[in-house]
Amino acid sequence: MGSAGLASLNYCVTALLFDGSNSDKQKEKSMDPDAVAKAFVDHYYSTFDANRAGLANLYQEGSMLTFEGQKIQGSQSIVAKLTSLPFQQCKHNISTVDCQPSGAGGVLVFVSGTLQLAGEQHALKFSQMFHLMPTPQGSFYVLNDIFRLNYA
Amino acid sequence: MGSAGLASLNYCVTALLFDGSNSDKQKEKSMDPDAVAKAFVDHYYSTFDANRAGLANLYQEGSMLTFEGQKIQGSQSIVAKLTSLPFQQCKHNISTVDCQPSGAGGVLVFVSGTLQLAGEQHALKFSQMFHLMPTPQGSFYVLNDIFRLNYA
Repeated sequence: MGSAGLASLNYCVTALLFDGSNSDKQKEKSMDPDAVAKAFVDHYYSTFDANRAGLANLYQEGSMLTFEGQKIQGSQSIVAKLTSLPFQQCKHNISTVDCQPSGAGGVLVFVSGTLQLAGEQHALKFSQMFHLMPTPQGSFYVLNDIFRLNYA
Repeated sequence: MGSAGLASLNYCVTALLFDGSNSDKQKEKSMDPDAVAKAFVDHYYSTFDANRAGLANLYQEGSMLTFEGQKIQGSQSIVAKLTSLPFQQCKHNISTVDCQPSGAGGVLVFVSGTLQLAGEQHALKFSQMFHLMPTPQGSFYVLNDIFRLNYA
């Protein structure tokens, strides 16, 4: 697939994930777990780096985040945690993305990469997993999110 | 909980997970995701380090392993992969275990640690996630398993 095709697919998947504006054909394409994972990872980390508060609509009330061992539940509390992290500007660089179907239409996404904080010399290595579940409207939300820094 | 109580709980959970010999009371106790995750992690890595072939009964035909990006499906293929890894003796040391309920009675387990290979000076850092699903008999099996080394 050329870059234009990939961009188009990503657009479709992103539309599916986040505003439900996909056609049936796009929805069918988007059910490929690899495409869902790729679009999700692109969207999640670019939103995190640009405007963390914008992540709120990816979570629901039953969503869970475990951040460095701290358990947090619900979209509002999760976003409050993410926006209160003690740094302003950051940039995620993704090294690996693995995904598998988890049953019941869900997708597991396993990410490794680095997190560069503004003003810090060394990037932090991290691993993170997401469990994406389908909504009745044909989009996805994050049911489970577990984040860990990988200390050297 | 004292160490005797913890050992007893672990025994119950291990029995639940692996031979279904639990009583109803033990089953109820064992449904705590943290207890299930702890018992699973202890059992999985001690079995891996002592006798990798013994992991076969943790997987089923629909189970998936993604090992350093390679996708493998089914208990037999997964154990063939694990037993063919190019080292004999190894020792996992676990640094962190996080878990969350994943819906439908499932448990997500996210592990970080190091893998020491016999004869190697430095241990390898790894992250791994498991999605445990309940069986009709009241035990659990591994539906999803994703493993990555964390290169320095």
